[in-house]
Amino acid sequence: MELYDVIVLGAGSAGMPAAIYAHRFGLKTLLIGKVVGGTLNDSHKVENYPGFAAIPGYDLMMKFKEHVDSLGIPVKEEQATAAAKGKDGTFTVTTEGGKYRARTLIFATGTQHRRLDIPGEGVLMGKGVSYCATCDAAFFRNVDVAIAGGGDAAAQAADLLAQFASKVYVLVRRDVMRAEPFNRQRLEQNPKVAILYSTQPKEVLGESGVTGLKVVREGKEELLAVQGFFIEIGADVRSELAAQLGVRLNEQEEIIIDVESRTNVKHVYAAGDCANRKFKQAITGAAEGVIAAFSAYEDLKKAQGEKAEISYH
Amino acid sequence: MELYDVIVLGAGSAGMPAAIYAHRFGLKTLLIGKVVGGTLNDSHKVENYPGFAAIPGYDLMMKFKEHVDSLGIPVKEEQATAAAKGKDGTFTVTTEGGKYRARTLIFATGTQHRRLDIPGEGVLMGKGVSYCATCDAAFFRNVDVAIAGGGDAAAQAADLLAQFASKVYVLVRRDVMRAEPFNRQRLEQNPKVAILYSTQPKEVLGESGVTGLKVVREGKEELLAVQGFFIEIGADVRSELAAQLGVRLNEQEEIIIDVESRTNVKHVYAAGDCANRKFKQAITGAAEGVIAAFSAYEDLKKAQGEKAEISYH
Repeated sequence: MELYDVIVLGAGSAGMPAAIYAHRFGLKTLLIGKVVGGTLNDSHKVENYPGFAAIPGYDLMMKFKEHVDSLGIPVKEEQATAAAKGKDGTFTVTTEGGKYRARTLIFATGTQHRRLDIPGEGVLMGKGVSYCATCDAAFFRNVDVAIAGGGDAAAQAADLLAQFASKVYVLVRRDVMRAEPFNRQRLEQNPKVAILYSTQPKEVLGESGVTGLKVVREGKEELLAVQGFFIEIGADVRSELAAQLGVRLNEQEEIIIDVESRTNVKHVYAAGDCANRKFKQAITGAAEGVIAAFSAYEDLKKAQGEKAEISYH
Repeated sequence: MELYDVIVLGAGSAGMPAAIYAHRFGLKTLLIGKVVGGTLNDSHKVENYPGFAAIPGYDLMMKFKEHVDSLGIPVKEEQATAAAKGKDGTFTVTTEGGKYRARTLIFATGTQHRRLDIPGEGVLMGKGVSYCATCDAAFFRNVDVAIAGGGDAAAQAADLLAQFASKVYVLVRRDVMRAEPFNRQRLEQNPKVAILYSTQPKEVLGESGVTGLKVVREGKEELLAVQGFFIEIGADVRSELAAQLGVRLNEQEEIIIDVESRTNVKHVYAAGDCANRKFKQAITGAAEGVIAAFSAYEDLKKAQGEKAEISYH
């Protein structure tokens, strides 16, 4: 089996920068990720990646992909299902498509959308229930929709949906929105948007499609007549494969990394939304990925008894 | 005097992202920097800022500036000369143009080019001696030139100069180059470039222009007949103003920051080349700037007795 210097797991906004830098350090690099672009693809407008005043998340990720491709880095668009460390100290990653072996692993596996787990949610998924406003907003022209969530994902989804829908209810569990002030203020100024605080969805109604939503608002049950329901309540960390290698996780199951993106397991690194940094943005995840590649390069050189010589610019 | 929430000092690849995020957090933000773009302007080709496979440093910085301008953030293109903390806990920054006051300061002051301090260097500056290949390379068409330095700045300068000059000598003090393998290999393959290891420049010769360079190579004095001499030996950290506030520096005079870009002084943060991170890149400095803005926002909210509520995406 071919031995790579680095396998990067996850082809999103942290994984692609890790692969770009690993390759530029002269390391034999493989990028594995089922969804190129990852969850940033679902962001309909990214306004905070320095260098792009405003760009759809998918377009930004395609620019990252072009960057990866310009260097000829191999990419396997496959789902990794297992990771193991061999007696010789190398790692084997199993995917739906095969097995790959490397001296070091960088986890940039991100997160997956969280579900509400309320009646009607599962059966009406794809029939009015959606976890991706960017993907599905345009299907909800001139109808009323609701969004569950109080963070930036919910705020962005509302902003986008208001371009299509007649009315957008934002259902915020708490009495404040967690979203950035900038995003929240934009919503408050949008006449199509109504923010309902202290409101929890209880049941999605409908048979062949969504017809309404049962909610509890300030303790009282109400019915919202909506035809679309978007669930933007956050995401779960994808850190199971790292855990298989003995990598330490925190209480949120995020991979614990140091300032140089190293985990507790030698030659294993992590970056981006799967790691335990408080502030998670495209720009910070990209930097963590780049630093992971640098640490992998340094550690491989040290393992060869050679001092890594990297200049500062 | 107007009171800002945040003053960002330095308008380069770390300072502009800090200002973008501070503004987006709803903080009243002022960006002060004599040279918009900073030292990255001098990089003739940036190939490792994810999202841009290859872009001149100046162009990338103009994209950052457009991003800043799209948000209407005020920018003062002035040199800061002093920083002081008042009895009320606010900071006053003095520039050549005036005085500005803020609740928090983010230092993104970067570095300045280092000099060799050899005979002829000062008097021939701008007459064949240069610290910026990007700015001056095109003036050296069909002549021989030398570059002092062994890092990526020197490698990139050589790569660029080889497009114009007949012959490019790269004078490396040590017996190895510190440059990234990718950059070094490109030089080794360039027939116009000669890398001279264990070589130190001793004197720049010439009166109205450079006519040669006295060097010591492997212990022996030699004369190189060059008409241009580029000095790319690194840079000194600009941390004097931070030091005036009691901010702790390391032995390299870099500002010591934690993982959230905080210094030891309350409400003072730092990011980019002036901070003590081992790996200094546009992408990592930008992320440090963004994190500094986030920490300033959190700390200001805490100072108001309100928990900062920032969503994760």
